[in-house]
Parts: sequence; structure tokens; C-alpha cells
Amino acid sequence: MNKILYFSSDYQEGAHPNIIQTLVKTNLESTPGYGLDPYTDSACDRIRKACNCPEAQVELMVGGTQTNATCIDAILRNYEGVVSAKTGHVALHEAGAIEASGHKVLEIEAERGKMNASGLKKYLETYYADENHEHMVKPGMVYISQPTEYGTLYSKKEIEELSDVAHSYSLPLYVDGARLAYALASKENDVTLEDLAKLTDIFYIGGTKCGALFGEAIVIPDKNLVSHFLTTKKQHGGLLAKGRLLGIQFDELFKDKLYLEIGKDAVEYAKLIQDSVESSEKLSLLYRTPTNQCFIIVPNKKIDELRKHVSYGFWEKYDDDNTVIRVATSWATTEESVKELIKVLEEI
Amino acid sequence: MNKILYFSSDYQEGAHPNIIQTLVKTNLESTPGYGLDPYTDSACDRIRKACNCPEAQVELMVGGTQTNATCIDAILRNYEGVVSAKTGHVALHEAGAIEASGHKVLEIEAERGKMNASGLKKYLETYYADENHEHMVKPGMVYISQPTEYGTLYSKKEIEELSDVAHSYSLPLYVDGARLAYALASKENDVTLEDLAKLTDIFYIGGTKCGALFGEAIVIPDKNLVSHFLTTKKQHGGLLAKGRLLGIQFDELFKDKLYLEIGKDAVEYAKLIQDSVESSEKLSLLYRTPTNQCFIIVPNKKIDELRKHVSYGFWEKYDDDNTVIRVATSWATTEESVKELIKVLEEI
Amino acid sequence: MNKILYFSSDYQEGAHPNIIQTLVKTNLESTPGYGLDPYTDSACDRIRKACNCPEAQVELMVGGTQTNATCIDAILRNYEGVVSAKTGHVALHEAGAIEASGHKVLEIEAERGKMNASGLKKYLETYYADENHEHMVKPGMVYISQPTEYGTLYSKKEIEELSDVAHSYSLPLYVDGARLAYALASKENDVTLEDLAKLTDIFYIGGTKCGALFGEAIVIPDKNLVSHFLTTKKQHGGLLAKGRLLGIQFDELFKDKLYLEIGKDAVEYAKLIQDSVESSEKLSLLYRTPTNQCFIIVPNKKIDELRKHVSYGFWEKYDDDNTVIRVATSWATTEESVKELIKVLEEI
Amino acid sequence: MNKILYFSSDYQEGAHPNIIQTLVKTNLESTPGYGLDPYTDSACDRIRKACNCPEAQVELMVGGTQTNATCIDAILRNYEGVVSAKTGHVALHEAGAIEASGHKVLEIEAERGKMNASGLKKYLETYYADENHEHMVKPGMVYISQPTEYGTLYSKKEIEELSDVAHSYSLPLYVDGARLAYALASKENDVTLEDLAKLTDIFYIGGTKCGALFGEAIVIPDKNLVSHFLTTKKQHGGLLAKGRLLGIQFDELFKDKLYLEIGKDAVEYAKLIQDSVESSEKLSLLYRTPTNQCFIIVPNKKIDELRKHVSYGFWEKYDDDNTVIRVATSWATTEESVKELIKVLEEI
Repeated sequence: MNKILYFSSDYQEGAHPNIIQTLVKTNLESTPGYGLDPYTDSACDRIRKACNCPEAQVELMVGGTQTNATCIDAILRNYEGVVSAKTGHVALHEAGAIEASGHKVLEIEAERGKMNASGLKKYLETYYADENHEHMVKPGMVYISQPTEYGTLYSKKEIEELSDVAHSYSLPLYVDGARLAYALASKENDVTLEDLAKLTDIFYIGGTKCGALFGEAIVIPDKNLVSHFLTTKKQHGGLLAKGRLLGIQFDELFKDKLYLEIGKDAVEYAKLIQDSVESSEKLSLLYRTPTNQCFIIVPNKKIDELRKHVSYGFWEKYDDDNTVIRVATSWATTEESVKELIKVLEEI
Repeated sequence: MNKILYFSSDYQEGAHPNIIQTLVKTNLESTPGYGLDPYTDSACDRIRKACNCPEAQVELMVGGTQTNATCIDAILRNYEGVVSAKTGHVALHEAGAIEASGHKVLEIEAERGKMNASGLKKYLETYYADENHEHMVKPGMVYISQPTEYGTLYSKKEIEELSDVAHSYSLPLYVDGARLAYALASKENDVTLEDLAKLTDIFYIGGTKCGALFGEAIVIPDKNLVSHFLTTKKQHGGLLAKGRLLGIQFDELFKDKLYLEIGKDAVEYAKLIQDSVESSEKLSLLYRTPTNQCFIIVPNKKIDELRKHVSYGFWEKYDDDNTVIRVATSWATTEESVKELIKVLEEI
Repeated sequence: MNKILYFSSDYQEGAHPNIIQTLVKTNLESTPGYGLDPYTDSACDRIRKACNCPEAQVELMVGGTQTNATCIDAILRNYEGVVSAKTGHVALHEAGAIEASGHKVLEIEAERGKMNASGLKKYLETYYADENHEHMVKPGMVYISQPTEYGTLYSKKEIEELSDVAHSYSLPLYVDGARLAYALASKENDVTLEDLAKLTDIFYIGGTKCGALFGEAIVIPDKNLVSHFLTTKKQHGGLLAKGRLLGIQFDELFKDKLYLEIGKDAVEYAKLIQDSVESSEKLSLLYRTPTNQCFIIVPNKKIDELRKHVSYGFWEKYDDDNTVIRVATSWATTEESVKELIKVLEEI
Repeated sequence: MNKILYFSSDYQEGAHPNIIQTLVKTNLESTPGYGLDPYTDSACDRIRKACNCPEAQVELMVGGTQTNATCIDAILRNYEGVVSAKTGHVALHEAGAIEASGHKVLEIEAERGKMNASGLKKYLETYYADENHEHMVKPGMVYISQPTEYGTLYSKKEIEELSDVAHSYSLPLYVDGARLAYALASKENDVTLEDLAKLTDIFYIGGTKCGALFGEAIVIPDKNLVSHFLTTKKQHGGLLAKGRLLGIQFDELFKDKLYLEIGKDAVEYAKLIQDSVESSEKLSLLYRTPTNQCFIIVPNKKIDELRKHVSYGFWEKYDDDNTVIRVATSWATTEESVKELIKVLEEI
């Protein structure tokens, strides 16, 4: 029990072996740059099929913040902002990337990372009811994440409702799927890729946290939604020279439905960890999540001991005596390390 | 009682007669542009004296949003944001001008328009306590307004406390004084221009709402705080070609302490209006303010009648049956119109 | 000859007496803010009539840089830039206001301030011929000034040609008319307001340099070209609280065709000054202009003497021994001062 | 001769075998994200040693445009722009990424991609000589590329001179080394990494085009030059979650001086290709380069034939009958393909 168990995030390891193998195999092939290669073509085709959306525009980028900033900037006009839960990644943890391209993040209340349709509707109604609303930033699109930053899931019904409200105000609905594989792998999830393509206007399928070295795949069901996306990508520093690296990775992730399977162990392991915490006397859950992130309330006096054994993420202060930590599993988490983690948690 | 009484804002009329006279008198004089004229020199000198701050940098601009966006952009680095009450003008009613220059408005809770030092401190402590705070926008300055958008005042003690907290984190404190004359004219006010120059790092003295046709005078007690301000002003579209128009106006406003007097009637009239509402059976105050804005709760069924006689500002929905309206007096409000307004409010 | 003659710019004085009189007369009237007043309505109507364009959207702003930055930002998408002569005001003398809102100024060669249609066409052809043009900023609109920063004029034929080229690439043509009155007053000019409304997509009629205290009137012949312009104006710090000040000024300027007359003396005086320089032995013209700016080559050894008598603008170094200065007349220039200037120039 | 020979760019293949091997070997290791891993530490140490600059700040990013935009934004203040050759990558081929963060690219004349010290000096002198220079964007730093976009090299003496001029105006000198390995491998080069660390203020060592899958290593000899770089990186979408991927790659590139060797074959092959073109009757060089890019003038009537055999880059139209193409070798180019290319060029 003197080795460190790594649970601080879901981006601690490299990539799924299929990806590594293909990167090795194709390493010295010559292909055109900037995504004009056959691997990218193939990956985009597989993604269109998986979404049952043969006309969709699919774009590959390197990382999440980059993808969010680029998609949002591609959609909004200068006078518009993006509506987000106040806990949304774009609102809090992207170092002002959205504002840096000139757009305000319009924050609304959230519960466990989720906004709800009635809250969104009320926000929009209030905006338009204000006689001076033209002096305010116009809401131009809606941002949600699935799963959320809090590990929670929107149900299909909830996304339908958000979609209805957003569309009734002509606002595109955008879904940040940085951890989408862990939503798709959850038994509690009823939202498929096909649903996302039907109900939303733009979403991205996370690679970085879901089996790839890096990479996020943007899906735009109506390919007329944005224009000159390549120029916007380049302007945001997000046009990868060796674009095939993205193509190869998503091609592998969407072969044989790998992406739909890759999060399953992580979600199961997170369940075991949460079961263990719930049966613990000293620890408790902030709340139970259906995906790969566990939020555990730890007495401050146990923190130092825990840190000797486990690499975890600080989440927030709970009260003067307790701290919330985040433990994340991933596609690369091993059963053995989970058992060891549970043992540590039980013995602490 | 069939004429309209104008109380919808404090920028409905032109300028104080002294200003108009001097504009007329100097109209055909030739002076250099961009503020390099003797009137601007004189105005800046008078302002330095009024602030007892002979070394201060004083800069004149046209309007409030422009002034806020320029000052904030002049101070912040690209990775920084401005901390503001969530009800602050920069947070809500400037159409995203701050974000348009790349900076996030970091919103904290407010009560009647005011943030407090402990809330600010907690916000900053929480920011630095977060292990990942470098992934978030760094707080780079603090914005408050005096009086606030809600007509309330910070006391000297409150500003001292905010100043202490801000400075303990090396953050400049910026005060938006769009309606500063109404603060200075209030009996409840204990914050002088000299206090602002001592306790804050940059503030502006509002002209537009306080007797000028337009114009805001920025005071930077430590003239080394910002550099190349003229270029920043020009970039923000705020360098007036005929800069002397600003010079002439502030020169007049600061002759014979006019600026300290100009808001007195307005504040007294606002008191009378609020007295009347408090004694009314059908109307009530949202809360009493010590300055020139009155927030009155009006039954929805009385709104149409009221609108026939009074031009007011919509503030917010109070509940299903009542609406909050804003009635603002100004330096140009006449005693007669106040009497008529009170009569209307009593008879409604 | 020991008093200074002011010819350094065309924004050294206040406003035309008609404007001053109306500002005085209306000073204590109460009107709604932000341009929702009857004077603004009337001014916009007069401008629509003067342009013979009854459906045009007319917007009033305070200054030129502000107007350029706002109009350009209102039209361009994030991936687009504005094509300008490399000597254009937006390219050189606006402190980066265009870039500050995220847009590149795409500079093309100019002669005496003018781009030409074939140069524009070649630029656009070269852009689209480049296989990698999507890695470059997309040209999104074309900017010219009339008169140019060099005092020259586009002929109607030249504007027609530029309009044809721009429109063949679906680019709006924008005209900066900061000094438009001096174009309209020139005998060499054959471009009317009506022509501008027909041939261009957006232009502004300068007030600041043409008889107003400040103010520029934007004309958008097709009112569907931009949307949410008020929000964009506010975001750019260009929504004047007491908007009627702009309304009153343009209302006066467009009464009885004042705007078409107001530049006539200035243009005639500039002719006289240029005649005098041409007949001088020691001075010469850089070139003759048909408007109100004169560019005079002065031996460096005469500069100090000249400076004792005349306030002029430095234009550029001509060679090691000579300097080009700019002498500008305006609507406020007096015949007497012109005579004195000519005397100074002759005697130097 | 019916297979395609790939010479269109230097980013057509994957990575050097050492990199691939280490990526495979370390794939399932768990490390902290965002560059807080031992591979990144090691890489940065090796780079500091190679630059003989033990105190330097070293930062790893993914791609060139991202790196340029981030470094420039980290250094400039809002009122500043970056001086670049008009042919510089930041001026032309980055889709407005610099302007998107609010900064103007101040373009000066270039010859074969190079600015010279006297041109830079004249530009700066002219700027400061202009009485109205505060109305213009202030030059805030100088950007050059080594090798340039035109395959040419700055000599040590030239960089010393540029450095002297820049520093005499307190401007940091920044070097874009996207293809730096091909400079370091050229026999004509006399500028070492150590020289760059001494003479410039910030430069980046290109990985993407020089043996890595992706990645650029920024070196800031004086670590006090920029602050909060991590936040700026994140804001620019350039903070890679699995930062160790960058660490591993640069660690390999700087083991056993690999980076100093990796471009040698490419430069030698480019020499052979240029020799062949020079001895050709039908083809000619635009000019000879000392690095890995060859610029070949091809008669238009031969282009179709050439395209059947070779994938090359379009460079520019030479005249009505001829086109300039770019042929680039890289670390991955094989001797065999070069021989075949030469044969194609000879037989065309």
C-alpha cells in the first residue's frame, strides 16, 4: 500500500492500444496535411454513420477548450453570448477563452451541473421582457455538457425540453461531450448519438478523456449552420498540421463500436467505488453519479493519510472539517487499482 | 394632469446653463484637437484640486460604457478579469463591452447593488485555494459603482474595507461614478472626492448624468498606473476630436464647486417622492435610497393609468400583481414637476 | 503677423451657428435617451430624403474611429477582414480599433489615398487563386474614404467600378465620409449622396469635421444588411445617452441643404491657398487636391519661421531638406485668416 | 513512374522512430496532466541545456499558429502590435489569429522573407517621428522566422543587428522556429540555439515539421518576461491535457543532439534537388535556398505532367507562362524518393 493509485483525472494515460497500433503502423506514410487525408475522411464517415446523420459536417480538433471556443465563436455574432450553467466548463475553467474571442458567457443557475428547461425559459423570457434588453448581450446559443462537469446526465426528455426552449428562441443548442463515452456507457443514460444529432445543433464527441491521445470530434447535423469553419479553426490555433493523427484516432474509436464500449469498465468501477464509500463510516458521497466521476466527502484529518496512497482531485471545501475530493476512473483504469483504492478507502 | 412628467432617467435634458453659455461663447475659437487645449488643461487642474491629488492623471471621455471598457482594458492583462457585483453595470448593461475587449466579468453576489468586503475576500480566497485556479480567469481588478445602479451608497468604511481586501491581493479598485454628483450631494454620504483619490486606484466622475451634455472624467491618483492611455482611448473609439468640449464642460462643473452642489435638488426631490410613496396606501418602496433614484412597487392594474401621466423606467417584475418602476430625478428636475408627480402618485 | 493662424485641422472650432442655436433652445426639453427622441427621427428622415433612399437605416454615432470600428464589426464575421488602401484611416490612424474587435485590415496599394478597381480585383483574384486561401483572413468588405485621407476624390465612375468588383465577390462596399461635405462641395466631385446610396452598401456622413460639434451619420441603404445594430453600438461604447444631441445636429445640417453648402468656402479657400503655393518660388504642392486639405512642401530651414505664424499639421518627411505639411481649411475658416495665411506663405 | 512522390510539405509523415517507440512504451503509465509530468520536466531541462540557458522558461505547445498567437498575446499590451515582415507567417497565413486576440500585425518590407535591421530602424524612427504616433498602434515586439517562410536564413550578424535595433526601442525580439531544425542543419547557418537564447527574448523550436507528431517548444531566456503563461496558454486553447505527449517528444528530440541532426538529410536532399533544377533546361530556381524548401519555376504547360508524378505546393504565379512551386524535403524524406523526383524533373 505504499504505491500511489492514480485517480486524479481521466487523462492520465495515453491511448487505447488500437490507436497506438495504427499510429505505429501508419507512421511513415505520406499524406496531405490539415485533415485532407483518407483517415480523416474515414473517421468522419464512421461518425456520421454512428450518428445516423449522413449529411452532418464533422470536424476534428485537438482539445476541449479549443473546441468550445472555436464552435462558440463560429456560431455567435459579435453581439451575442452563450448561455451556460454557471458551473459549465466554458463559464469557469477555460481561462476566459470564450471572452477572449469577444463573447460573454451568460450564466444561469445549475443543480449538480445541469441547467433545466424552465430555468432557461425564465432566463430568456426575462431578457426579452426587459425594455432595455438591447443594451444587454443577446443570448445567441445554449451550452450544456453531457455528462456534466459534475458527472451527472441529462435524460433524453430533459434534452428534448432544452432543445424545445432553445429552438423556440432560435438558439442553437450545443453539447460539450468531453466525457461522452462515459455517458454512453452508463446504464442510466437514454441519450444516444443519434438523439444528440436530432435534438441538438452542434455537439462534440470527446476523444482526449475517452481513449485517444487527444482529439475531439465536432458534429454539426445541419452542415449549413456554420461556414468557413476551417478558417475559424486556424484562427483559433486549432488546425492540426498532421490532421491525420486525429483521423486515425477517431477512425479507430468508431470501428466496431469501440467508442460505445470504451467507457463501460470505468463506469462500473466508479459504481464500485461509490458503493464502497456509501458503506463507509468515515466517508460519504457528495451525491452518487451515474458516470465515471466520484465526489467523496473526506474528513480533513484523513486527507494527509489518503494523499499518501491516492492521487485524486481537489473539488471543493465541504465545511470547516471536511473536503470534497474527486476520484475519476477512465477507460485505462485497471480492476486491480480499483480494488486497491477501495481497500484504501475502507481502511482510512 | 394630461401632460407627461419625465422621470424615466437622469439624462433627459441638455446641460447646466453655465456649460451651455461657455459652449456658445467659445464656439468659434480655434484650439488643437484631442484634448490638447487650454480648457481641458484647466478642467483637469480643477479636478486634481477637488480631489486634493495634484499628481493625478485626469482623462476625459464621452460616455460611461466607453469609459468603463477603456479603463478596464487599460489596466487588465489578457489573462485577467474584473470582479464586479453581479448587478454591476459592466456585468449586465453594457452589451458585452468588457468581453468584447477580451476580459471576463467575474460576478459576485450583491445586495442592493453593493458587494461587501467579506464577500470579495471569500471570492478571492476561494480562487487561490483552488488547485486549478490557473485554469480560471485571474481576478485583475475590482469594480464598484458609487452610487450603485440601485441608488445605494458605499460608506467610507465600506470602501476602506474593499480597498484593503483588493490591495491585499494587489488588485486595483475602480469606481464607476456615473452618478457621483448624487452621491456627493446626499446627506448620508461620507465619501468625498479626496477619499476616492486616497482609497481607490482609478475612478470616474460622471458628467453625462450630472449636468453635462456628455462626458466622464477619469482620475488616476498614481499616474504610473496605466501607460499609453491616449492610444487605448483612441482604440476604444473614445478620443473625441474636439476634446475641448469635454474640457469646457468639466471646467464649468468644477468651477465654484458646482459639481458638489449640482445634485442636491435631485436628491431632495427624490426624498420627497419617496416620502410620498411611503405614506401611500397603494404604492410602496422596494427600499428607500439616499440618492436620486426611487424604486416604487406599483400594482399592475395601476400601471396603465400611471403611464398616461409619467414617463418612468421599468425596473423589474415584483410578483404576478406588481411591478417595480424606477423614477429618477436629476439636476434638471423642477420643483413643479416633482409636485405634480407626487400628486399623480397620491391620486392613483 | 504675430498671431497664430489655425490651419492644423478641420476640427478646431465648435459648430455651425444653427446647431448652437438649436442646442441652446432645446437645452431643457425632456426627451428619451439613446436616440429615441423626435430630433433623431427628424434627422434620420432628412438624411433618407437627401439620399433619396426612403427605406435606409440611418444611425448616428459620435466620432469617426468609433463609427468605423462599429460598422466594420457589425458587418464582418469572425473569419473576415476589411480590405483598405494601405493609407486608409482604419489601416493606419485608428490605434488598432479594427484589430481590437478581432478583424484584420487587409491592406492594398493606394495612390494618393485611393485604391483602384483593378488593384482590388487583382487582390481578390490572388486570394482565391491561392490553394491555401482558407488559411488566410477572408476578405469580407471593402473600405474606402471620400474624400480620402489625402484630400483626393473618387469619381462616380471609379466608385461604380469598385462597387462592381466588390459586389462580384459579394463584398459590401463601405465609405468613410468623415469629410464628405468637402467632397460634396468640390467642383470636381460628381458623386452625390444619392449615388453613394445606390452604389455602396454602407457609408457615413461626417459631422465632426463638417459643421457639427461631433457626430457621424451612418446610412445603410438596405436595412437588412445588419441586425442588432444598437447592441453593437453599445458594445463599442458608441451609444450616446443623450442621443438627441446627435439628432439635433444632423437635423440642422440637413435642413435647407446646409450640408451640401457648408464645405463650399473651405474648398474655395483651399484652392486659393494652393494657387498661392503654386506661384511661390520657395514652396510647392505635393499635389493639388480638389477638397479642403493642402499638402505643401516646405524647406526645413523655413519651418521654424512658419511655425511662428501658422498652426499646421506635420504630414511626412519629403527628403532630407524638405518637409510636407498639411494645411486644412474648414467650414469655420474665415476669408481674413486665409488672406493672412497666403501672405505668410508668400513672405516666407 | 506512376506513383506519386510526396514533396508538398514537411508535415506529411508521423514522427521520428525514437518518439514513436517511447510513446508506445509509456502509453499506459499514469502521469499528471497539463505538463506537470516528469517527461516534460526532462524535456525542458534538455532544452535549457541545449540553449546553455539554465534559467530559461520553457513551454511546450501543440502547433505553430497557436504558439505564435499565444506568445504574442502574452507579451503585447492592448495598445501594441507586432512588427513582422509582410511575408511573415503571422501576417499572412494564420487566418487572423493575431488580430483575433486584438493585436495588429505591423507589416514591413521583406526580401525573400527577411526584414533587415535598417528597414526595421527606419520603420521605428518614422513611427516615433510622427507627431500623431499615439493615434497609431505602438510597435510592441518584433517577429522574425528562422528559417523564413521563403527557406532563407538570417545570419548571426543579421540577428545581432535586429536584436540591437529592437532592444534600442525596448522591443522584445521573437523568433518563429517552426522549421528550426533545417536552419540548424544547414551548412550556411551560423546561428546556434545558444545564440538565439542570447540575442532574442523569446523563440520557439519547431517540432511538428522537425520530427515530432506535433509540438513546439517555447524558450524564454529571461523567465520574468511573461507571467501567468499557463493561463494564457489555456485561454488560447493550447494547454494540452496529456501534456506528457509533448514532453516525451521533445525529450527524445533533445536526447543525443537528435534535433541538431534530424534536418541534415533534408537539407542535403534539397541541395541535390536544387542542383538538378539549376542544370535543367526547362526549369529554374526562383532562388537557391540553404534549407529544406525549394522554389522551382515551372512552365505552365509542364504542370499537368508534373502533377501526375509529384505532390508539391503551389507557391505563386510567376508570369503568364510560368508558375512557382514549392518542393519541401523533411526528416522523413528518403534518398530513393529524391532520386525519383530528380528523374521526374529531368525528364519533364
